[in-house]
Amino acid sequence: MLVIMKPDAAVAEISGVIKAIESMGLRPHPNRGADRTIIGVVEAGGGTDLSFLKKSAGVDQVIPINKAYKMVSREFKPDNTVVNAGGVAIGGDRFVVMAGPCAVETHDQVMSTARAVAEGGGRILRGGAFKPRTSPYSFQGLGEEGLKILLAAKGETGLPIVTEVIAPDLVGLVCEYADILQVGARNMQNYALLEAVGSVRKPVLLKRGMMSTVEELLMAAEYIVSSGNSQVILCERGIRTFERATRNTLDISAVPVIKRNSHLPIIVDPSHAAGYVDIIPSLSLAAVASGADGIIVEVHPSPCDALCDGNQSLSFEQFNGMMDDIRAVATALGRPLAG
Amino acid sequence: MLVIMKPDAAVAEISGVIKAIESMGLRPHPNRGADRTIIGVVEAGGGTDLSFLKKSAGVDQVIPINKAYKMVSREFKPDNTVVNAGGVAIGGDRFVVMAGPCAVETHDQVMSTARAVAEGGGRILRGGAFKPRTSPYSFQGLGEEGLKILLAAKGETGLPIVTEVIAPDLVGLVCEYADILQVGARNMQNYALLEAVGSVRKPVLLKRGMMSTVEELLMAAEYIVSSGNSQVILCERGIRTFERATRNTLDISAVPVIKRNSHLPIIVDPSHAAGYVDIIPSLSLAAVASGADGIIVEVHPSPCDALCDGNQSLSFEQFNGMMDDIRAVATALGRPLAG
Amino acid sequence: MLVIMKPDAAVAEISGVIKAIESMGLRPHPNRGADRTIIGVVEAGGGTDLSFLKKSAGVDQVIPINKAYKMVSREFKPDNTVVNAGGVAIGGDRFVVMAGPCAVETHDQVMSTARAVAEGGGRILRGGAFKPRTSPYSFQGLGEEGLKILLAAKGETGLPIVTEVIAPDLVGLVCEYADILQVGARNMQNYALLEAVGSVRKPVLLKRGMMSTVEELLMAAEYIVSSGNSQVILCERGIRTFERATRNTLDISAVPVIKRNSHLPIIVDPSHAAGYVDIIPSLSLAAVASGADGIIVEVHPSPCDALCDGNQSLSFEQFNGMMDDIRAVATALGRPLAG
Amino acid sequence: MLVIMKPDAAVAEISGVIKAIESMGLRPHPNRGADRTIIGVVEAGGGTDLSFLKKSAGVDQVIPINKAYKMVSREFKPDNTVVNAGGVAIGGDRFVVMAGPCAVETHDQVMSTARAVAEGGGRILRGGAFKPRTSPYSFQGLGEEGLKILLAAKGETGLPIVTEVIAPDLVGLVCEYADILQVGARNMQNYALLEAVGSVRKPVLLKRGMMSTVEELLMAAEYIVSSGNSQVILCERGIRTFERATRNTLDISAVPVIKRNSHLPIIVDPSHAAGYVDIIPSLSLAAVASGADGIIVEVHPSPCDALCDGNQSLSFEQFNGMMDDIRAVATALGRPLAG
Repeated sequence: MLVIMKPDAAVAEISGVIKAIESMGLRPHPNRGADRTIIGVVEAGGGTDLSFLKKSAGVDQVIPINKAYKMVSREFKPDNTVVNAGGVAIGGDRFVVMAGPCAVETHDQVMSTARAVAEGGGRILRGGAFKPRTSPYSFQGLGEEGLKILLAAKGETGLPIVTEVIAPDLVGLVCEYADILQVGARNMQNYALLEAVGSVRKPVLLKRGMMSTVEELLMAAEYIVSSGNSQVILCERGIRTFERATRNTLDISAVPVIKRNSHLPIIVDPSHAAGYVDIIPSLSLAAVASGADGIIVEVHPSPCDALCDGNQSLSFEQFNGMMDDIRAVATALGRPLAG
Repeated sequence: MLVIMKPDAAVAEISGVIKAIESMGLRPHPNRGADRTIIGVVEAGGGTDLSFLKKSAGVDQVIPINKAYKMVSREFKPDNTVVNAGGVAIGGDRFVVMAGPCAVETHDQVMSTARAVAEGGGRILRGGAFKPRTSPYSFQGLGEEGLKILLAAKGETGLPIVTEVIAPDLVGLVCEYADILQVGARNMQNYALLEAVGSVRKPVLLKRGMMSTVEELLMAAEYIVSSGNSQVILCERGIRTFERATRNTLDISAVPVIKRNSHLPIIVDPSHAAGYVDIIPSLSLAAVASGADGIIVEVHPSPCDALCDGNQSLSFEQFNGMMDDIRAVATALGRPLAG
Repeated sequence: MLVIMKPDAAVAEISGVIKAIESMGLRPHPNRGADRTIIGVVEAGGGTDLSFLKKSAGVDQVIPINKAYKMVSREFKPDNTVVNAGGVAIGGDRFVVMAGPCAVETHDQVMSTARAVAEGGGRILRGGAFKPRTSPYSFQGLGEEGLKILLAAKGETGLPIVTEVIAPDLVGLVCEYADILQVGARNMQNYALLEAVGSVRKPVLLKRGMMSTVEELLMAAEYIVSSGNSQVILCERGIRTFERATRNTLDISAVPVIKRNSHLPIIVDPSHAAGYVDIIPSLSLAAVASGADGIIVEVHPSPCDALCDGNQSLSFEQFNGMMDDIRAVATALGRPLAG
Repeated sequence: MLVIMKPDAAVAEISGVIKAIESMGLRPHPNRGADRTIIGVVEAGGGTDLSFLKKSAGVDQVIPINKAYKMVSREFKPDNTVVNAGGVAIGGDRFVVMAGPCAVETHDQVMSTARAVAEGGGRILRGGAFKPRTSPYSFQGLGEEGLKILLAAKGETGLPIVTEVIAPDLVGLVCEYADILQVGARNMQNYALLEAVGSVRKPVLLKRGMMSTVEELLMAAEYIVSSGNSQVILCERGIRTFERATRNTLDISAVPVIKRNSHLPIIVDPSHAAGYVDIIPSLSLAAVASGADGIIVEVHPSPCDALCDGNQSLSFEQFNGMMDDIRAVATALGRPLAG
C-alpha cells in the first residue's frame, strides 16, 4: 500500500496519517522525498483496506500495491516511462545506443571515440571518470579532469554524457557535467548513494548488481523513485554464475520480465556481460530483438592499449559493423534506431 | 592429440599405435566407434609431437588438438556441420523452428498441434513419449504408444519428429520412429546413453545440462561424435542460477561462444529457460538475432490442460504471432526461415 | 498421498484402487517395486481425503503426505534409518569414515591404501572401477578387473567396499563385488539407473548432483526407495557456485536440512567439494560437527602419481593426522568413531 | 609489488619513487594512508625487480608480492593478526562468540539480550542501529538512539559492541559508540566506505558480499588495511546459490581457504547463512570445527516478535543449548571459548 501525500501537506497531516496506519496494527514507512512524502505500508497478509485515508487531510492518493516495489511497478503506472537525457528519449519508440570507452584516459582518446560513436549512430557518450575497482592498486580514474574531457567531447559532437558516480558526496560534482548519472553494479544496494541520486534532477542509469535478482533491482530503483527522482533507466549487465566462458552471464530474460513488471526503460550492457569482444555483436542484436530500449557498449580507439576492460572494447570498425546489423533488426521490428 | 585409424585398420595395427604412444610416456584413450577407432591423447603440457605416427600402418590422420574436446571443435573442422533430419537441414542457411507439445498426451492433441505447427512455419515436430521426471509420482509419458501417435502426425503433416530417449536400451525402439533422438538436460553426462546414441545413424539433439558449462556440453558431444555419429545438434535451454523470476536463466551468450568453438549447429529452447509463456517470444527473437540455427518451443492446443509444462506452452495463436516476428528478424539478418 | 498395497495384492485389486483414485479426479502413479506396488498421488491443492481406501482389498496403508518426496521423508518414518553395509552400521550412534583412492589403478595401490585406511580408523573402503569422466579421452577405470582388486583388499582387511555403478546393465556385475553401490553426482537424475539400483538388495550411496537442490536429491532417493530398496545413504559433495577458490562449494547446511526432512543417513564427501587437499581436514571436522553420519574421503599412497584427482587425495600421513582430530570432535559430541 | 614509504617520508621522496617506477614502464598506485604512503604496483607478468628502490630516500620496505591483495596476505605477514576489540582478543588462542539482536528495537530488548549473551558465554554484543534494507519501506533502524541503547547495555554487562555503519559520513558517529565497526555484505565493495573505516582507529568487521569471491573479500580488506587500519576481522555469512532450502549457502570452505591465504581473523555468521533457526547450532559447530576464530549470531528475547530476521534468531534457551556444544568442540580441538 502507498499513501502519497500532497506536495504541500503539513507535518501534522503526515503525522496524522502515520498514526492512523499504526492504529490499525500496521507499520508505516514514511519516505520524505524532494517533492512530497510517500508512506509505504508492507503487510504480510495484505488484506487491510486503507482507502478511507484518501479523505484525510494532506493525502493525495492511496494506491493498493502490495509488492515490495510499488512506484516502479507497472501496476502503479501502466504506461512506459520515457526518460529525456539531454534531448535523447530513452524508452520511447526509438532504440538508443550509448557507447564510449570504459575509462576516460586522455583527451584524444575520448574525442576520437566520441566522433566515431556519433558517426556510427550512437546517441549517448559513455566514459568513466571515477572508477570503482576491485583492487586498490588498479587505475581509479581521472576524476574531475575526466569529467572535463567528456564535456569537451559533448561540446564537439553534441552527444549527451553518461558517467558513473561512486559516492554520495560526489553527486553534486558529477551533476555539473553529466546528463545521466550511472550507479554501478557494485553500488546497486548502496542506499546512501541511491538516496543521493534520488534527490537530484538528472536521469539515473541503474545497473543491476551481478548477483542481484530482478526484484532487487526494482527495489533499488524504488529507493531512487521514492526519494523523488522518477527518471530512472535500468540496465541488465550480466549476472554471476558458474559458467566461465564469459565474464558474466547475460540474463536476456530480464528484459521481458522487467517490461512486464515495470514501466521504466531497460537497456543492456553486452560488454561487461561478455568480457570478450567477439561475442558482443551477437549479444547486442539479442538485446534489440528481446525488446530492450537500448544498449551501452564499450568502444576504444585502440582496445589493446586500454587501461581498463580492453578485451571487451570494440574497435571503431567493429562498432560500425555491429551498428549495421542493429539497424536492420531494429527496423524489422518496427522500432528504428534513434537519430 | 587425435590419432584417427583407418576404417579397415587391423587390431594389431591399433595395438601398435597404442604401444608407440605409451612408449613416449603418454596415455592413449582408444575409442572404438562404429566405423573406426580413434585414439585420443590428452597431455598436461601438450608439447609432444606425434606427427610421425602418420606413417604407421592403419593410421589415417594425426590431428594436433590439445583441447579436451577435439572432433567437435572448429579447429578440427572449420566449416559448419549441416545436419539433415528427415529432409530438413539444420545448421545451414535457413533458420529452423521445431515445435510441439511437451508430452504426447492424446492422438487429437498431437494431431491438431502438428497441423498448427506446420501451418505456422515450423519444420520439425517435437513431443515427449518417454519423460524423465524429478518425482517418481509425476506423469512419465505414454511410451511406445506416444511414439506411434507422433508417427501418425508425421504421416499427415510431413514434419520430421524429434523425441527424447532416456535410457540406452530404448535407443533401438526410439530409432524406429524418430528422425532426431533427443538427449535431455539431465542425461547430458549419462555416458552410457551418449555412447548408445553415438553408435546409431540418426541425428542427435543434445541438450545442455542445467548445471553444465559450455565446455562440458562440447565434451558430451565429443562422446557421441567419437563413438561414430557426427550428426549432433546442440541445444541451449537455460542454466540454473540464483534468479527466480524465470525457471532457468537462458545463457544466450552460449550461442556465439559455441559458434566460435565448434562446427556443430546450436539451437535454443526458450520454453524450458523461461518457464513462463509471456516472455518466450522475446527469447525466441533473441535466439534468432544471436545467430542460433533454430529454436525448439512448446506448443499446446490448450496450455491450461497440459499434463506437463502447461505454463510454458504457447497456444496456437501465440505461436503464430511469434512466428511473424521471427520471420522479420530472420529475413533482416539474411537467414530466412526454412521452408 | 501414498497408497501402499500389500505384498500379495492381486493385479485386480491394484487396478481397483487406481480406478477409485481416478474417479475422484486425481492422477495415480503406480510404482511396481520388487516387493509391492505403491501408488503415489500428487495433488495441486492437497485437500482430498483418501483415507477411505484403507478398507479396499489389497491396501496396506494410506499415508497423507503431500510433499513431492514421501517415503524418504521424516513424516513417513520419524526414526532414523540405519543402513547395514557389510556389517558396518551407517546412520546409527557411531560416526563412519569411508576412504580409499579415487580410482582403482593397481593391486598394490589398493592393498596398501586399504591397510592404511583400516589402521587409521576407516571402516569402509572406497575405490572406483568404472569412472564416469567428462572427457572421452580420460582414464575410464579398470572395470571388472578393478572390482576384483577391491575384493582382494576386502579379503585382507575386512573392510566392506563402496564403488560406483554407472549404467543399469552393470548393476548386476557390481552387486557381485560391492557392499554399497554408489550412484555418482552426474547420474543423480539418471532415472533408469535409480530404478535399477532400487530393485536390488544392496545399500546405495546416492551422491547429490553438483547443481541439484536438496529437494531434488530427496526425490532421486524416492525413486530408489519406491522401487523397493530402502537402504539408501545420501551424500553431500559440494555444489557448483561462482566461487573458484574451491572445486565446488561444500553445502554444509545440507546436513541439518536433510536430518530435519528425511530419516535417511547423510554423509559428506569433502574431497570432491574441496578439490585441494590442504582444506580437507577442516571440512571433515565441519562434517562431524554438523551432525553428518560419516564422511567419504580420497586417500592415495602417492597422491602426485594418481591417475585421477591427485590434488584432492590425502596421503596416509595426512589421513592419520585428520583422524585424530575427527576422533576428538566425535567423542566430544557423544558420537564416537565406529570401530 | 608494494613499496612502503616511511611514516615521515617527504612528498618529494614519494614523488621520486613514483617517477622511478614509471620510468620502468610500470604503473604505480600510491595509497595515502593515515600513517604512511604505500605504493602498489601490479604487473601483468610480474618479473620486474624493484628491490633497488629500498635504497631510495623515504622508502621503508619493498615487498615482492604479485597477488592482487598484498598487505592482507600471509606472504606479507606470516603470523596471525590478533584484533583487540574493547579488551577481547579475536584471532588468538580462544574462540569468540558475538551475539545479540539483528536490529536494536527497544531498551528492554537489548538489555535482556545482553545479559543472556554474557551469561551464556558470549563476549561481544551485536545489534544494528542503522539497517540497510532491500526495500525502502522496511524498518531502517533507530539510528543514534539505537547506539545509545547499545552503550547502556555495554555499561551494564561489560560486553564490547559491534554495530554496522552504512555510509562514510556516519563513521565518526558510530565510532563514538562502537568497539567494532561492521561493514555489511551489501557494502563490501562500497569503496568510499572502506576508505572511511580504513582511516579510523577502530577494529572493522568486514562481511563477505553474498555475491563475492574469497579473493574479492581479501581485496576489499586490502582497501581498509592499505588506508591505514590493520585491525580487520573477516566474516563469512553465506553466498547466493541456486539452493533454496536455506537463505544463503554457508561457504564453510572459506574458513580454511582464508586461513591459508591471509593473516586476518575470520569468523562465521550462521544466522544470515541459514535463515532458519533450527539449523544454526549445526552451522555454528561446523564453524568451530573448521578453524574459524569466532561466530556472530542473532539472539532475540522473543524471536516471533522481532522487527527483522525473526525466523533466524535464537531464543535465549536455544543460545544456551548451542553454547554447551560449542564449548565441548572448542575444548576438544584445543581452543577453548574466550572468557
